[in-house]
Amino acid sequence: MVQKFINSPDRITQEVLEGLVAAYPAQVALADENIVVRATPKSQDKVAIVTLGGSGHEPALSGFVGEGMLDCSVVGDIFAAPGAQRLFKALQLFKRDAGILLVVLNHSGDVMSANMAVQLAERAGIKVKILLTHDDISAGLDAPNDDRRGLAGCVPLYKVVGAAAEEGKTLDEILEIGSRFNEQIATIAVASRSCTHPQTGDVIAELPDGEIEIGMGQHGEGGGGRQKFTNADDVTSQMLDLLLRKLHPQASDKVALYINGVGATTHMELSIVFRKAAQILAEQGITIVDSRIAEILTVQEQAGFQMILVKVDDDHIDLLKKSSNAPYWTVIGK
Amino acid sequence: MVQKFINSPDRITQEVLEGLVAAYPAQVALADENIVVRATPKSQDKVAIVTLGGSGHEPALSGFVGEGMLDCSVVGDIFAAPGAQRLFKALQLFKRDAGILLVVLNHSGDVMSANMAVQLAERAGIKVKILLTHDDISAGLDAPNDDRRGLAGCVPLYKVVGAAAEEGKTLDEILEIGSRFNEQIATIAVASRSCTHPQTGDVIAELPDGEIEIGMGQHGEGGGGRQKFTNADDVTSQMLDLLLRKLHPQASDKVALYINGVGATTHMELSIVFRKAAQILAEQGITIVDSRIAEILTVQEQAGFQMILVKVDDDHIDLLKKSSNAPYWTVIGK
Repeated sequence: MVQKFINSPDRITQEVLEGLVAAYPAQVALADENIVVRATPKSQDKVAIVTLGGSGHEPALSGFVGEGMLDCSVVGDIFAAPGAQRLFKALQLFKRDAGILLVVLNHSGDVMSANMAVQLAERAGIKVKILLTHDDISAGLDAPNDDRRGLAGCVPLYKVVGAAAEEGKTLDEILEIGSRFNEQIATIAVASRSCTHPQTGDVIAELPDGEIEIGMGQHGEGGGGRQKFTNADDVTSQMLDLLLRKLHPQASDKVALYINGVGATTHMELSIVFRKAAQILAEQGITIVDSRIAEILTVQEQAGFQMILVKVDDDHIDLLKKSSNAPYWTVIGK
Repeated sequence: MVQKFINSPDRITQEVLEGLVAAYPAQVALADENIVVRATPKSQDKVAIVTLGGSGHEPALSGFVGEGMLDCSVVGDIFAAPGAQRLFKALQLFKRDAGILLVVLNHSGDVMSANMAVQLAERAGIKVKILLTHDDISAGLDAPNDDRRGLAGCVPLYKVVGAAAEEGKTLDEILEIGSRFNEQIATIAVASRSCTHPQTGDVIAELPDGEIEIGMGQHGEGGGGRQKFTNADDVTSQMLDLLLRKLHPQASDKVALYINGVGATTHMELSIVFRKAAQILAEQGITIVDSRIAEILTVQEQAGFQMILVKVDDDHIDLLKKSSNAPYWTVIGK
C-alpha cells in the first residue's frame, strides 16, 4: 500500500482547496466551504458556468476555474457529490439575469444533487439550465445516454462553454453550442493498475498484474474489456477504433484529441499513446485542431489513461482557441 | 511490476518526442533526431537558450521549449546524456552573433557532453556560454556546488533566461540575471516509493513500505534522510526548513515556490503540501510571488515530490510573469 502525503483523512478536501488557492491566487479563490470561484469575477451581465463533483480527482474539477472557463466548482468529499445544499448556495452566489449553465457529469450522486439544487434555485427565481455530460462509451456504442458516465470530456466542454459565456452569448446560445459539442465527445478509459481510496486505504478495483481493463470508470467501475497487456500501439488502436466507431468522423472532419493520465502512468507513456492515435487519424485524413497530453482528471495513483476524441465544428474550434487563465488549462488566446 | 504503455524499449525516446510534437505543433517541432526546437524560431538577433538531458523525466525537458522559454532541448536516451555530437549539432543549428546560453543540469554525463560540445563549438566559431544548475541541497547546506545535483529548479530558470532573451538582452546580461537566479534556487526531493526503469524493468532504488527518503535524487541516488512516514505537514515542514536554512530569506523577501510531483504522487497530495509550505512562509512574512503545483520533471512512476524555493529579485519576478507558450509552462504575459 502506498503511503500518501496527507494529514487527517477528514481534512483532505479542505486542505487540497486551500493549497490550490494559495498556489494560484490570481486565478482562483474560495467563496465558501468547498466552493471555488474565479479570483476576478466575470461581469454580472454574462452567463455563469458552474460545475460540481467529488474531490480526489485533482486537478479536476476546481483546477479549471478561471477567466474563459469555469466561474465556479462546487466540491464534494473524496469521490462524493457535494450535496444539493452546497450547490444551491453556489447557485445563489451566481444568481443573475443572464442565467447560469450548470455542467453535470453523469454520476448518480452528482445528478441527484444537481436536480434537487436546481429545483430549489428555480423556486428562488434563479435562472439555471443543466448540461449533462455522458462521454464514456464503455457501456456500448448504442447505449442510451443515461447509461453513459461522465468522464474527462467535461474539461474541453468547460473550455467551450466558458469561452462562449465570456463573449457574452446568451444562455440559450451557450446551451446550443455546448450541447452540440457534448454530443460529439467520446471517451474511453483504460486501467493497468488500480489505486487506493485516500480515506480508507481500500483498493478500489482488483486488476491482476499484466492485465489491463479497457472501459474502467474513474471510481473502479467495471468496463468489461479486461485483457492481457500487449503494447502501447495495440491498446491505442483498440481504443481509438471504439471512439471512431462511435463518432464516425469523415476524412475532411476536424477533431480534438486529448490524452488524460489518471495518475501513475507517466507523461512518457501518454506521449507514446498520443503519437499512435495521431498517426491513425492522419492516415484517415482527419485533422487534429486541438490537443493536449496531461493529467486533467485523475483517479489517485491508478495507472492508465482516458482517450478523449471530439468531432468539432468551426465555432467550437474558435472557442477552444480563446484565452483561459484556469490553472490547469491555460490558453494564450488568438 | 507495473506494466508500461510502451512498444519497444529501444524506441521510447523517439516515440515520446513524436507524440510531443504531434500534440503541440504550434509550439514545438523536431529539427533532427532527438533535437526539439520551437515551431516558430526566435529571430537571429536574439540569444538562443539551449538545454540537454536524458528522457524518462517527461514533460522535462522538451516540454519547456516554446516562445519565451527554451529554443532547443537536446534529448538523450532514458536517464542518459545525449552525447557531445548531438549537442554540437544543436549548437551549430543555433549559431548566431548574439550567442547561445547552454543550461546544464549538474549530472556527470550531461556535464561531460556539454563541455565537449562547447569545445567543438568554440573551435567552429560558435559563441556559447554554460550556466550549470545545482539546486539540490541534499548533499548538505555547505556542500560545494560540484557536489549538488541539478533537479527541477532548472525549469523556472529556463523561464527567467528565456524571457530575458526574448526581450533582446545580451548573452552577458542574461548570464548575469540567470546566475543570480541560479544561486538563489534550493530544491529538496522526497521519495515514498521507488519506480522501475522503463527499458530494463529494474527497480531504481529500494525503499521499504512506510518509509520515505528525503533527498533522493531523480535517478534513485541516495539522500540520506530515510525515516518513517509521519504526515504531510511534518514532511513539508522538515523539507521547507532545510530550504529556508539554505536561502535564509528575510521577512520582506519575495520567493517563488513550486511543488513538482515526480510521478505517482497525486495532485491532491501536492496541493496539501503546497498549502502547508505557503502557511509557514506567510507566518514568517515571506511573500510568494510565483508558484505552481504540477508534474514538471518526473521520475517514472516514483511516488514523491520535489519542493523548489527561489529567492527572487524584482527583475526575476518581471521575467517570470512574461508570456510563454511552452506546452508545460504556459504563461499569459503581463
